[in-house]
Amino acid sequence: MKNDLLLKALRGEETGRPPVWMMRQAGRYLPEYMALREQYGFFERCQTPELACEITLQPVNIIGVDAAILFSDILVVPQAMGLEVQLIESKGPVLPAPVKTRSDLQRVRVPDVNETLQYVFDAISLIKKELNGRVPLIGFAGAPWTLLCYMVQGKGSKTFDEAKAFCYTQPDLAHELLQMITDTTIAYLKGQVAAGADTVQIFDSWGGLLSPEDFKSISLPYIQQIVGALKEDVPVIIFAKGAWYALEEMAATGASGLGIDWCIPPALARKMAGSNITLQGNFDPAKLLSPIPVIKKEVNNMLNAFGNGRYIANLGHGILPNVPVDHARAFVDTVKEWSSS
Amino acid sequence: MKNDLLLKALRGEETGRPPVWMMRQAGRYLPEYMALREQYGFFERCQTPELACEITLQPVNIIGVDAAILFSDILVVPQAMGLEVQLIESKGPVLPAPVKTRSDLQRVRVPDVNETLQYVFDAISLIKKELNGRVPLIGFAGAPWTLLCYMVQGKGSKTFDEAKAFCYTQPDLAHELLQMITDTTIAYLKGQVAAGADTVQIFDSWGGLLSPEDFKSISLPYIQQIVGALKEDVPVIIFAKGAWYALEEMAATGASGLGIDWCIPPALARKMAGSNITLQGNFDPAKLLSPIPVIKKEVNNMLNAFGNGRYIANLGHGILPNVPVDHARAFVDTVKEWSSS
Repeated sequence: MKNDLLLKALRGEETGRPPVWMMRQAGRYLPEYMALREQYGFFERCQTPELACEITLQPVNIIGVDAAILFSDILVVPQAMGLEVQLIESKGPVLPAPVKTRSDLQRVRVPDVNETLQYVFDAISLIKKELNGRVPLIGFAGAPWTLLCYMVQGKGSKTFDEAKAFCYTQPDLAHELLQMITDTTIAYLKGQVAAGADTVQIFDSWGGLLSPEDFKSISLPYIQQIVGALKEDVPVIIFAKGAWYALEEMAATGASGLGIDWCIPPALARKMAGSNITLQGNFDPAKLLSPIPVIKKEVNNMLNAFGNGRYIANLGHGILPNVPVDHARAFVDTVKEWSSS
Repeated sequence: MKNDLLLKALRGEETGRPPVWMMRQAGRYLPEYMALREQYGFFERCQTPELACEITLQPVNIIGVDAAILFSDILVVPQAMGLEVQLIESKGPVLPAPVKTRSDLQRVRVPDVNETLQYVFDAISLIKKELNGRVPLIGFAGAPWTLLCYMVQGKGSKTFDEAKAFCYTQPDLAHELLQMITDTTIAYLKGQVAAGADTVQIFDSWGGLLSPEDFKSISLPYIQQIVGALKEDVPVIIFAKGAWYALEEMAATGASGLGIDWCIPPALARKMAGSNITLQGNFDPAKLLSPIPVIKKEVNNMLNAFGNGRYIANLGHGILPNVPVDHARAFVDTVKEWSSS
C-alpha cells in the first residue's frame, strides 16, 4: 500500500505526521456527490457497487484524505434483518413498522449476509480494485444500541425515549434484539473484511444518550462482542459519540482506535483511554464554517494537543453539508503540513 | 416559608432529605396543563399572569414538588429585545428574521424590562400570593449563548452550526450580541427577584454543543456576569446541559447550585464541582417511562450516589410529554421517602 499511515497509526507505529480523514467525507458538501444524489435515490447509490465505489473515491481524489470509507448507511443492517427502511432525504430515516412487542420481533431475523448484503461486499471489492493500494479502506457498521434506536423508535429522535423505554420495560426482549443485531453485524463486518476492508469502525451515534450505567449494560457488551470477533482480522475503531465517560471501558475491549468528539479535552481522553490505543478526532464540524486562517490555527491547536503518537486526525462527528470544499481541504492540508517539532 | 428545603439545600444547610422538583414540571405530561393548552396559545399562557400562575401551581398541587418554577419560556427575552418569535407547538420556535449581520443587530435592543416583561413580574407577584409560603418559587432565564443560538439560527437545530459559524466568523458582533443579552437578562432576573422569585436558574440548554474552549470564551463569561450580578440577592443555579467539562469553572462563578445531566456519574460531578456547591439532577427523563418499581429502584440508586448533602433531586433535563402522571409522582415520592440512614 502506498499510503498506509492510517493502519500504522492504528497499530501504534511511527507515522511522521498523523493520518487524516473525515467522518461523512463522501457527502453533501461535495458538488460531485450532489450531482449523483440528484440522479439516484439513496438506496440505489448504496446498492449499486459502481455508484458506491465512485462516491467512496470522491474525497480521496478531491480532498486528498489518507483513507477511504465505504459509502453506505448503518440502516442497511436493519433492512437486511427484515425491517422496511425508508430514507427520505429531507426528513431522515423512517421505519414504518418498528419493533415494539415480542410479536414484532418475529418479523426480524438474523439474515445470511451473503444473500442480503452481497451488494456491499461487491462494492468493497470494486473500491479496493479502483483504489489500487493508494490508501486503506475503512468498512463500518452501526453499534447494536444505535441500530436498536431506529428499529424501535422508527425514526430519528432527540432523545430516543421510546427506544430507551423499550429497554427499561422489556429488557429481555431488548437484549434478544441486541444479540440478533450483534450476530448480524459480526457476520456483516467479517464479510466486509473478506471483501477487502482494511479496518472497520463501529458507529455508536446514540451511545452518549445513555447514562454511564445504561451504556455499560445496553451498548458496551455488544460492542465488546463485535470487537472480540473482528480484532484478530483487522484493527477495529469504536466511535461512541458523547460516551466520553466509557473511554476506559471501550479501550479495554481490545479495539485499536477510539473516536472522540470535541467535548472532551484531548489530554483527558488520553488519560482515560490509556497509552495503548489510538485516539481519533475531534474537530468540531461546525468549526469548518470558520474562515480558513481560523481553521488552520484551530487544527494546529488540536494537533499540538494530541501530539504525534497513536493519533488519527478527524472531525468529532460527520462533516456538515454547508461546509465549503476549500474549508474541508484546508483541514486536511493543515494536518499534512503539521510537524510536531 | 413552610417548606424551604430547596433554599436550605442551596445554602448548604441540613435538609433531612433532599428537596425535589422536576425541570419542565409544569408541562405537557399533565392533563390539567393540556386542557389550558387547548384553550390558549403559548404566549397567551405566558403573558396572562392568571394563566401563568395557574400552570406554575399545577405540579405543586398535583405532584407535590418542593418548589414551583415560573411558567414561561427563555425566548421571551429575544422577543423583548425586538425579535419576532413564533412558537408553533408542533414544530418548535421560529424566529423569522434572525441576526446574521451587523445591520441585523440594529433591530435588537436592550429593552426596559419593566415595559417589555412586566407581565412576567406580575405573574410572579400573583404566584407568590397564591403559593402563600408553601414552597419557594424559582425564576429563570436562558443563558446568553443559548439565546444567541435561537437569535442567529432562527429555529431549533441539532448542531446550531449557523450560530457557531456566526461566533467564529464575526466574533466581535457575537460578543456584542452576547453582552446585550447579558445586560437584558441581568435586569430581567433582578426584576424577577424584586417581584418575589426566591432563587433563579440559568438554562444553558445548548452549552454542551460547545467545545470546552469555546464554552469558556462564548458562554461562561456571560453566565459569570449574571451570577455576579444576582448572587447577593438570591441563590443562583446554573444548568448547562452537557457541559460537564466546565463544572469546576461554573462552580467558581459563585453560583449556589449546578444542574447536571445523567451522563456524568455523581461522584465525578462532585469531585469536579468541589464540596462548596449544591448539585442538582440527574435522573434520565426517559427513565420515567420505566415501570414504577424500576423508577423507585433507580431513584434510590441516584439518591444513594449523591448522598444527603448539598443536593437537590431533579431530572437531568425536562420531563417528557409521554410520562404518565403516576410515574412523575413516583419519582417525587421516592425522594420524599428516602432516608440516608
